[in-house]
Formats: sequence, C-alpha cells, structure tokens
Amino acid sequence: MIDEIKKSFSKQGFMKTLGAKILHIKEGEVKIQCMKVDNLTQQHGFFHAGVLTSIMDVACGYAALTIMPENSDVLSVEFKTNLLRPANSKLVVATGKVVKSGKTLVFCEAKVEDEQGTLYTTMQATMICLQKKNAN
Amino acid sequence: MIDEIKKSFSKQGFMKTLGAKILHIKEGEVKIQCMKVDNLTQQHGFFHAGVLTSIMDVACGYAALTIMPENSDVLSVEFKTNLLRPANSKLVVATGKVVKSGKTLVFCEAKVEDEQGTLYTTMQATMICLQKKNAN
Amino acid sequence: MIDEIKKSFSKQGFMKTLGAKILHIKEGEVKIQCMKVDNLTQQHGFFHAGVLTSIMDVACGYAALTIMPENSDVLSVEFKTNLLRPANSKLVVATGKVVKSGKTLVFCEAKVEDEQGTLYTTMQATMICLQKKNAN
Amino acid sequence: MIDEIKKSFSKQGFMKTLGAKILHIKEGEVKIQCMKVDNLTQQHGFFHAGVLTSIMDVACGYAALTIMPENSDVLSVEFKTNLLRPANSKLVVATGKVVKSGKTLVFCEAKVEDEQGTLYTTMQATMICLQKKNAN
Repeated sequence: MIDEIKKSFSKQGFMKTLGAKILHIKEGEVKIQCMKVDNLTQQHGFFHAGVLTSIMDVACGYAALTIMPENSDVLSVEFKTNLLRPANSKLVVATGKVVKSGKTLVFCEAKVEDEQGTLYTTMQATMICLQKKNAN
Repeated sequence: MIDEIKKSFSKQGFMKTLGAKILHIKEGEVKIQCMKVDNLTQQHGFFHAGVLTSIMDVACGYAALTIMPENSDVLSVEFKTNLLRPANSKLVVATGKVVKSGKTLVFCEAKVEDEQGTLYTTMQATMICLQKKNAN
Repeated sequence: MIDEIKKSFSKQGFMKTLGAKILHIKEGEVKIQCMKVDNLTQQHGFFHAGVLTSIMDVACGYAALTIMPENSDVLSVEFKTNLLRPANSKLVVATGKVVKSGKTLVFCEAKVEDEQGTLYTTMQATMICLQKKNAN
Repeated sequence: MIDEIKKSFSKQGFMKTLGAKILHIKEGEVKIQCMKVDNLTQQHGFFHAGVLTSIMDVACGYAALTIMPENSDVLSVEFKTNLLRPANSKLVVATGKVVKSGKTLVFCEAKVEDEQGTLYTTMQATMICLQKKNAN
C-alpha cells in the first residue's frame, strides 16, 4: 500500500509544483510536508490558503487509501478548510487522518502545523473509493 | 479598485505558479482563468482539486474586496469545496461572487466551469475585511 | 415520486416538531416552509440556525430523491451552512436544488429566504443514494 | 461566565424543544446532551441530522463564549457537519471545543458521540464575538 501511494503521489504533477513530500504513511494517517518558497505565497508573502488546502486534501486522500481494499482508487468528494492564522512558517506539515470509513465513503480530517506545533489550518473531508479499471 | 486588485493579484506568487489570470472584475464578481498544464494535475491527469479551490478562493477574495471600503485588505476565513466531477478541460474559469456583505465579514460563493459551461466545482466562502496598516 | 416523498416526510418526527411543510416538489427541487414560533428560537428570539439548517437539509435530501432511481433511499453525507444574517421573519422557505447527480452521490445546494426574498442562509450538501431494503 | 451561559441557554426556545441540557462547561469546552424521542427523528427513526447539528452548533457557540470578553455575545457565522453514521442511540452528547480564538472570530470544532464513545457526527464552526448592547 505504501508503494502504491508513493507511486500515485509521484504522478501528481501538482505535488511536484508544490515541492511537497510524503513524510509518513501509516494505516489511516498520512503526513505531507511543504516548504515556503516565493511561488507558493499570497499577496503578503504567507503560504497561500490553496497550497495548505492542497496538501491537506492529498494527506486525507492517501490516508483514506491506506484503509481501502486493494486496487482501489480515491477521489475527493468535498472538503472544508478553516484558516486559523496566516502561515508564515518556513516549513509546514499536513496531517490527514481517517475518522470513519464506510464501504463507499471515507470521512477524514486534516490539519497543517509547523515544526513548533503551531496550528494554521484544519479540514474536514469526504473521500470516495473507486475500483480501479486496470491494475496499472 | 480594479487597479488595487490587479496589483494585489500580481503579488501572489502562487497565482503565477498556477498561470492564473484575472479575466473580469466588476462590483461583487471576479473571474479567474487557468489552463491545464502538467504541473497542475493530480494522479489521473485532471486538474488538481487544490488548483480549482485556489482560484475559487482568490476569485471570492477579490469579489469581496470590490465591495469593501478603500484601504481594506481581505483574508479568507474559511471555504468549502464540492468536487462535482473530474476536470479534464483544457481551460477553466473560476467565478467568485459576493452573496452578502457585512461590516466585517463577506459571504461569497464560487464555481469553476469550462468554456462550454460544464460545472466542475462549487464553493461557499467567508472573507474578512481588514484595515490596511499602510497604504502601500 | 411525489407521494413517496410526502410519505417519507410524514415519517420524520422532527419535521412535525418544526411545523415544517412541503410547499413544492419538482424534479431536482423541493421547497419546505417553516413558521417562527417560540419553540424554534435562539436566545435573541430569531430562528435557531439549527432549524434553518434542518429544513435546508431536508429540502436537499428530497430534491436529491426526485432524481434517484425508484426504490431509492437518501441519506445526508454532509452539509455546510453559511448564516448570512439573523432570521427574524415570521415565515421562511428553504429551497433545495440538485446541482449534480452521479450514480452514488448527489450534490445539492439550498437557501433559506423569507417571502420578501431576503436571503438568510445558504447550504452546500452531499447526499447518498441507497437501495431500499424493502419497498415499505 | 457559567451563569451567563446557562441564562442564555435557557432563553433558547429551540433547546427546550430538543430537550437539550448542558452537561458541562469549562474554558473552551461545552457539552450538551440530548435524548432520542420520537419528535427528534428522521424517516428511519434515527436522530435527525438537524438535531445533532443544532446541539453541536450550540456547544461550539458557548465554548466560544467561555473565552470571549465579558458582555460579549456570540453568533454562528457558519458550520459544516459530517454525518459519519446514522445515530440510533438513546442518548447523545455534543462536545464543542475552541480550536483558535482571535479578536473577532473563534474557530471551533464539535462532535456527537453516545455514551459508549461511538462517534456520529463532526463539525467545524466559526463563531463571531459581538459586544452586547446592554448588560441585560
């Protein structure tokens, strides 16, 4: 499953654009890190809300995938981001966790923190499990 | 106001990264366009949900700014994205609109469509109006 | 379908408690009305946010049911309410609409207005289609 | 503060309708309980999503109030409910917690569980702090 997730992650052009890296994968939990560089900022030089949302979404999606049957694929149904404070940290980590998994839907939550544990954003997300059309 | 918005938009490093462009600004409504290129995709080659969310967020933020007092600054409080279908279109447009503005908070909604009017995502968002510390 | 919805609605004890009534059912759209009485208020005498959310949720659920296959049942997956202004009107109407329907999930939106068209709340909601276990 | 919250809660006609009771108030956290009776159900006899949302909203609102300045009043700006599983329990408890408080806005989260700790719903909510017009 870890290999599948890493392979899928490496196919996400947008994760490369963000310079995002998988830090950690375990059953029901995935961590993604991202460094603040100029091309990821909003008008005041903070992390763009869209960047933080993107890594939370991906962390939730792969957290959901860890508990899905083999040959599953995951798509985001919806997510909701609360922006607690501007994120001016050099490095942030998004942690996505499974809250409840059903046959079709997986409910997840995520947060973005820096290395000091300051909390920047939170997310509630719903993921859907799809059967892969072919094993590749 | 249009100049202020364009100036603010040009300071958003992340908007450059997305290749996003302002298409249209009027009172209470802003449109942002984005082209699908490889560095904005998820694992199946569709637009990443985070990209679509980012341009909806920005469209909402500037739509809110159009109706705020001069020298205001806008920050996103929270937003919620529904992902209706995978977005495989070459070009998408995010439209952000003000639904209700109060003294402090502005409620907005947004959607992402392609040029044929196919609807990909919807958003509800809350923006907050801040007084700029200095006019630059 | 209209009969099925009315029958299902009549089984909702909570809708009786709210004094809610179905005003209108058509394909992809349902309207529910509710009168402001003392037992539906919050601490300032306005409609409680939970009441407005409840009738939006129900309007979305039945709007979704109108476009599902026969013998379907609908459950709410999630919803998000924006509270634009306190609702002090005597009568409010929740309108729920289908935005996009898939095989399993139906994306809806809703709003609460009074008879003058003042908008109080908006909702994005996701509904899931379940096969009924038996036809009763 | 506890007295203020109890007084405010007792003014909420809708909380009486739900038979809801405050179980617990501490800084940044409030618990509200509710019993399943027929007039709070949806069409299958489970707790109505609107009931669970209502008590989570109230728990968040008063959790926010515990950390606001004296003579503050709290209003819900928005909330988002995920419905993890149908709630068929006899008694449920909503726990609302402050995640981050600012000068104007307070970010909260809530959940509904039964006495065995089964989790039924989760919420992200944003509350706004208003200055009371008069001390009564």
